[in-house]
Amino acid sequence: MSKSDRLAEFESYRQQMNERIAQIDRLGIKRFFNLDSSAYKDGALSGKEKELLGLVASMVLRCNHCIDYHILQCVDAGWSDEELVDAFNVALIVGGSIVIPHLRHAVESLDLARLRKIEDKDK
Amino acid sequence: MSKSDRLAEFESYRQQMNERIAQIDRLGIKRFFNLDSSAYKDGALSGKEKELLGLVASMVLRCNHCIDYHILQCVDAGWSDEELVDAFNVALIVGGSIVIPHLRHAVESLDLARLRKIEDKDK
Amino acid sequence: MSKSDRLAEFESYRQQMNERIAQIDRLGIKRFFNLDSSAYKDGALSGKEKELLGLVASMVLRCNHCIDYHILQCVDAGWSDEELVDAFNVALIVGGSIVIPHLRHAVESLDLARLRKIEDKDK
Amino acid sequence: MSKSDRLAEFESYRQQMNERIAQIDRLGIKRFFNLDSSAYKDGALSGKEKELLGLVASMVLRCNHCIDYHILQCVDAGWSDEELVDAFNVALIVGGSIVIPHLRHAVESLDLARLRKIEDKDK
Amino acid sequence: MSKSDRLAEFESYRQQMNERIAQIDRLGIKRFFNLDSSAYKDGALSGKEKELLGLVASMVLRCNHCIDYHILQCVDAGWSDEELVDAFNVALIVGGSIVIPHLRHAVESLDLARLRKIEDKDK
Amino acid sequence: MSKSDRLAEFESYRQQMNERIAQIDRLGIKRFFNLDSSAYKDGALSGKEKELLGLVASMVLRCNHCIDYHILQCVDAGWSDEELVDAFNVALIVGGSIVIPHLRHAVESLDLARLRKIEDKDK
Repeated sequence: MSKSDRLAEFESYRQQMNERIAQIDRLGIKRFFNLDSSAYKDGALSGKEKELLGLVASMVLRCNHCIDYHILQCVDAGWSDEELVDAFNVALIVGGSIVIPHLRHAVESLDLARLRKIEDKDK
Repeated sequence: MSKSDRLAEFESYRQQMNERIAQIDRLGIKRFFNLDSSAYKDGALSGKEKELLGLVASMVLRCNHCIDYHILQCVDAGWSDEELVDAFNVALIVGGSIVIPHLRHAVESLDLARLRKIEDKDK
Repeated sequence: MSKSDRLAEFESYRQQMNERIAQIDRLGIKRFFNLDSSAYKDGALSGKEKELLGLVASMVLRCNHCIDYHILQCVDAGWSDEELVDAFNVALIVGGSIVIPHLRHAVESLDLARLRKIEDKDK
Repeated sequence: MSKSDRLAEFESYRQQMNERIAQIDRLGIKRFFNLDSSAYKDGALSGKEKELLGLVASMVLRCNHCIDYHILQCVDAGWSDEELVDAFNVALIVGGSIVIPHLRHAVESLDLARLRKIEDKDK
Repeated sequence: MSKSDRLAEFESYRQQMNERIAQIDRLGIKRFFNLDSSAYKDGALSGKEKELLGLVASMVLRCNHCIDYHILQCVDAGWSDEELVDAFNVALIVGGSIVIPHLRHAVESLDLARLRKIEDKDK
Repeated sequence: MSKSDRLAEFESYRQQMNERIAQIDRLGIKRFFNLDSSAYKDGALSGKEKELLGLVASMVLRCNHCIDYHILQCVDAGWSDEELVDAFNVALIVGGSIVIPHLRHAVESLDLARLRKIEDKDK
């Protein structure tokens, strides 16, 4: 796949497997997925702020799929590149050089997400 | 030690060992400590926002000393209990039940930090 | 505290903090605690089998509080020492020598839990 | 590669590299591989039970190769889908949302393993 | 891509993304990258010894990109296969069977790195 | 306990529990302990070099008991303070600020270990 399709590929796989998991109809799993969604809704903290928390947590725990998901959510929520880079920096300092491959991934995903926004506008 | 002294005990140990580490005069370590401090300074994101990122990162990575440090910073930065609990919730959902012992620690540390604020006022 | 009180100390702290967390009345956290309890109820797998899964997960993730909790549950559920040691062995092989300090803790906790059973009978 | 080949691809790579590692003839590594195999043999716990422990440990430690290996072993050992989903649920609750990408992987691998069983029968 | 290109592919991606990250011009990130480079320079320990430390740290933390980077550095620094296998063994024992997929990766990367050395000589 | 007894306390607990674990007479666990000891014996790498690898692995995996064990071994093997600090620095950069509480612990343990050497000489 070309680089530009990486995010779309991830989103398609994510949706397909989430639908497959929903079919399993295991109450505990279903409820956890609901709790997970609720955790990022507006509350005492805004949904926007919580997405940034989710992004940093994903980076220090070194999960590329989780990073991609939260990058897309953070871009949609309106965080600027400068703010996201500030969050990347906190994740890098907390997690150390072992985070660097995931920083590379995050920067690439952010670039791809911005590119997509531009392409969507041009349509 | 009594519960109420736990935070003071931690701060005293932290300061004493940071001073000992500073004596070592190893440039790489010294520079890392400086980078670590800088990472939470106001920038595109405010220092206040970054402390919350540090707190969630510490919880999902399950480090009680780091949690205590960031709880104290978050309280000083002005985050309310409701907002901090919202951040605890994100950490719990991301990191799962293995985070629960650290959630207990964080809630206790937050209570101790609030208690100290009240005691400081009464003086 | 004497060794023999370690488990009681842990249980008392756990209960006290769980009550404090319940006071917070944050729906997401409350629901997660409920989900966590439900995950170990009888289902396709028995509750007994799931407690053993929880124990091994706690050992490879290296959380002593979680280990103590699941050891007590496993003893109550009727797992024998030989079976628990078999589970310890899987955790040790999966997680490596970094698990050894937690193996020591688990063996000590198991001994304390058995001792308590004997003391309870003598009363 | 097509999805249906993913498990075969993994098994082929695993076997090829295990043979390469065996060539190295480093006693410590060889003995560890033997210990690893022995850990899942029938003992106080059955081999079937231990494979489930290995699966949950692999999920909370978030290792897709390890998940694939233990899924295949668990299917061969006779665990049903409902039982495996129960184990997935324990792993998800212990490890939190960071486990979700690995839950997706595990569900897909289980589907592929079942498909292969059907195809093998049809031959 | 063919196996023989895997290391070249990684190096090219690594360089491209490091250049992209350098463009971001975020002082904290830039300084961390500098600190990271400095950490492996000759000091009380030689650069050669430190690369081996970096390799073992990468293996127990289970990061394939980090493993590839340090394998290449270790080969350049003059560590022999026997010595590297000794280090692999320490990582395997410390980290357990969850490290095995990364041991396979490390052995393959070492083979590819040696092959490249031979091919380079033949040119 | 006073600080100066911390290492002795750890060694006593470690020995006592290792003896208890030896009583269990579970072959897999016994063999793993033997493999663990063998991993640090002289080979292609010296035992001295391997202890340093074990120390850095323990620091990035954030296990204080493991750190104490390897600090004592490293001091006995003849590593100087400057060399050990160089290894601490690699661990700090690889693992990030989440390693800092363990760096404090390691520096304190090293000081205690040196103090003990002096006291032993004075006897």
